[in-house]
Amino acid sequence: MAIGSVVALAGGVGGAKLTKGLAEVLESDKLTVVVNTADDFEHLGLYICPDLDTVMYTLCDLNNVETGWGIKSESWNFLEALREIGGETWFSLGDRDLATHIHRTYRMNAKDKLSDITADFCAIMGTDVRILPMTDDPVRTMVDTEEGRIPFQEYFVRLGCSPKVLGFEFEGIQTAVFNPLASKSLKAQDLAAVIICPSNPYVSIAPILSLAGIRDQLRGIAAPIIAVSPIVDGQAIKGPAAKMMRELGYTPSAVSVAQEYKDITDGFVIDSKDAADAGKIEDIGQRVLVTDTIMTSLKVKKSLADNIMDFANEIKVGDN
Amino acid sequence: MAIGSVVALAGGVGGAKLTKGLAEVLESDKLTVVVNTADDFEHLGLYICPDLDTVMYTLCDLNNVETGWGIKSESWNFLEALREIGGETWFSLGDRDLATHIHRTYRMNAKDKLSDITADFCAIMGTDVRILPMTDDPVRTMVDTEEGRIPFQEYFVRLGCSPKVLGFEFEGIQTAVFNPLASKSLKAQDLAAVIICPSNPYVSIAPILSLAGIRDQLRGIAAPIIAVSPIVDGQAIKGPAAKMMRELGYTPSAVSVAQEYKDITDGFVIDSKDAADAGKIEDIGQRVLVTDTIMTSLKVKKSLADNIMDFANEIKVGDN
Repeated sequence: MAIGSVVALAGGVGGAKLTKGLAEVLESDKLTVVVNTADDFEHLGLYICPDLDTVMYTLCDLNNVETGWGIKSESWNFLEALREIGGETWFSLGDRDLATHIHRTYRMNAKDKLSDITADFCAIMGTDVRILPMTDDPVRTMVDTEEGRIPFQEYFVRLGCSPKVLGFEFEGIQTAVFNPLASKSLKAQDLAAVIICPSNPYVSIAPILSLAGIRDQLRGIAAPIIAVSPIVDGQAIKGPAAKMMRELGYTPSAVSVAQEYKDITDGFVIDSKDAADAGKIEDIGQRVLVTDTIMTSLKVKKSLADNIMDFANEIKVGDN
Repeated sequence: MAIGSVVALAGGVGGAKLTKGLAEVLESDKLTVVVNTADDFEHLGLYICPDLDTVMYTLCDLNNVETGWGIKSESWNFLEALREIGGETWFSLGDRDLATHIHRTYRMNAKDKLSDITADFCAIMGTDVRILPMTDDPVRTMVDTEEGRIPFQEYFVRLGCSPKVLGFEFEGIQTAVFNPLASKSLKAQDLAAVIICPSNPYVSIAPILSLAGIRDQLRGIAAPIIAVSPIVDGQAIKGPAAKMMRELGYTPSAVSVAQEYKDITDGFVIDSKDAADAGKIEDIGQRVLVTDTIMTSLKVKKSLADNIMDFANEIKVGDN
C-alpha cells in the first residue's frame, strides 16, 4: 500500500533520527523535512546551519556517529592550526565539515538561496528526501537568560547551556517567509501526515511554528498532525529541553510537551516508559500512541516510523 | 660588527629563501621584508595572500618543503570533501593553511588592516622579522594573454601559465598607498642595503616598484640597492619568469633582468654559471657580484646573504 506523502518538522539530532526512519518506510520522494534554521549563525565569516546539516548528513549516511554531530571520517587539523594562531575555537569545525560551510557561504554571498543550495547538497550527497530550510530569510534564536540576551550557539555551545533561561526571541521571525516549497508540500493531495519530530519544542520546533501563516495552514489541513515527545521519563533524550522546561516553570514531561502543541496536533506519541501519562494527554484532546521512541538503531527508527504512520492512518480512519 | 638594517623586496619562494638567509645573518629586528600583494585574490570567499604566506611560513620555519608552498604537516581533507560536493578545487587549500585564510578573512571583513593582521601572525608564529604587505590597498595582477585578460592566480594555477603573455596590468595600483611602515624602513639611519630578491621581475617585483612614490624614494636613498637575478643559465629557478621573458620578446637571461632594474639598482648579483655575463651587466652601469645563488640549503641561503651584505658594504665604501 502506498502510504502517501509526509511532511516532518525537525530540529537537529532527534529530528534527523526520526526522518531517517521515515525515509526507510516511505517511498523515497514522498518525504519532505522542514528544518529549523533559527540556530543558524555566522562564525568566522562562515554561514553555519547546524540543524540542516545534521538532517542532511544523517539522511545521506554521512553523519558522524562518534561525535553525534558533524560529518563522518572527520579530522581536526584546521581547528588545531586555528588554535595555534589564536583564533576562536569554541565552535568545533572539522576539516571535511568546512567544505560544506565554505561552499554554502560562498554561494550565499553570491545571493543563492539557502533552499537551492540545500537541494544541490542533497542531490550530490545522495538523498531523494526533500530537505527544506523553514525559510530562506535570516531568523536567529536569542536566549534571554539571567545573564542577559545571548545568541543561541553562544548559549548552547560556548556556555554549555549553563545560564538560566527566561525566554526566547526569534529575531527576524516577523518578516521571514515560510518556505513556499514547504507550504506547497502541506497542500499535497496525498498528504498522509504532518509529523513534529522529537526535537526541542522551544528552540527547534517553536521557530518553525512561529513563521507567519504556518499555524493557520496546519489547522486547515485534513491529514493528521502528530507530535513525538522529545522528553522521556522526565528527561530530554539529548540536549537542554528538560533543563529549559524547569527554568521556564514547567514540569519536564511528555505531558508538558503535549500542552505546547495541543492547538495544532491530533495525536501525540510517547515512550513506553511514560505509558502512565497517556490519560493526561488524552484529557487535553489528543489521541495517544505509546511505543518505543528511543532511536538507538536503524531498526528502532524504522519501527517507530512504521508505528507513527499506522497511528496516522488510525486517526484518519477515526475522523471519517 | 653590526651590519645595520636591510629592506628586502620579495615575492614568493625565491624571495622567501633569500630573506631566510638574511634573517640568519642580520640582527633579528633589523630586517624588513616588503612583500608583493598583487597576486592576492579572493577564492571561495577567502582572502588569500600567497606571497605573504610563503614569506611568513618560511621565516617561521613552518613552510612545507614537500610541496614547496603552504604550511608543513599539512592534510587535505577539506579539499577532498569540497571535491566530493562539487566545489572549486583548482586552488589547493590545505586544512592547516585554511586556518590562516579564514582567520585573516574574518579580520579583513572586520576592517582590520592586512599589515596589522600580518604583524599579529608573525608574532604568534614566531619571527622578529618585519613582514610588510607592500600596501594595505587591493592591487590585483591581471595577465594580458593571447586568450584575453586573466586574473593572475587563474593564469598561474588553474591554467598552469600556458596562455602566451602579452603584458600585465596591476589593477588598483594608481590609488594604492605604499605601506607607510615600509616607507619608514627605507628612511632608517642605519639602512645598509635595499635588496631586490630573486623573485619574478614582472609579477612579483614590478607591482612593488609600481606603487606611487617608491621609485623616487629608492633613487633618493644613500644605501646601495642590489638586485639578485632569478634567472640562472637562461632559466628561472622556479616559476614562469623565463617563459614570460620569451613571450615578451626578451632573451631569458640575468642581463635582461638587470636591464629591468638598472635605473634604481647599484649592484646586481648573478650566479656563478652566468659569470660570462658580468661584463655586459657592468656595461649598463651596475657593480656585479658573481656567486652561488641557488639556495638549496640553509647554508647556501646564509652564505648568499653574507656575500650580498659584503657586496653592499663594498659598494658603499666605493661610493665614499
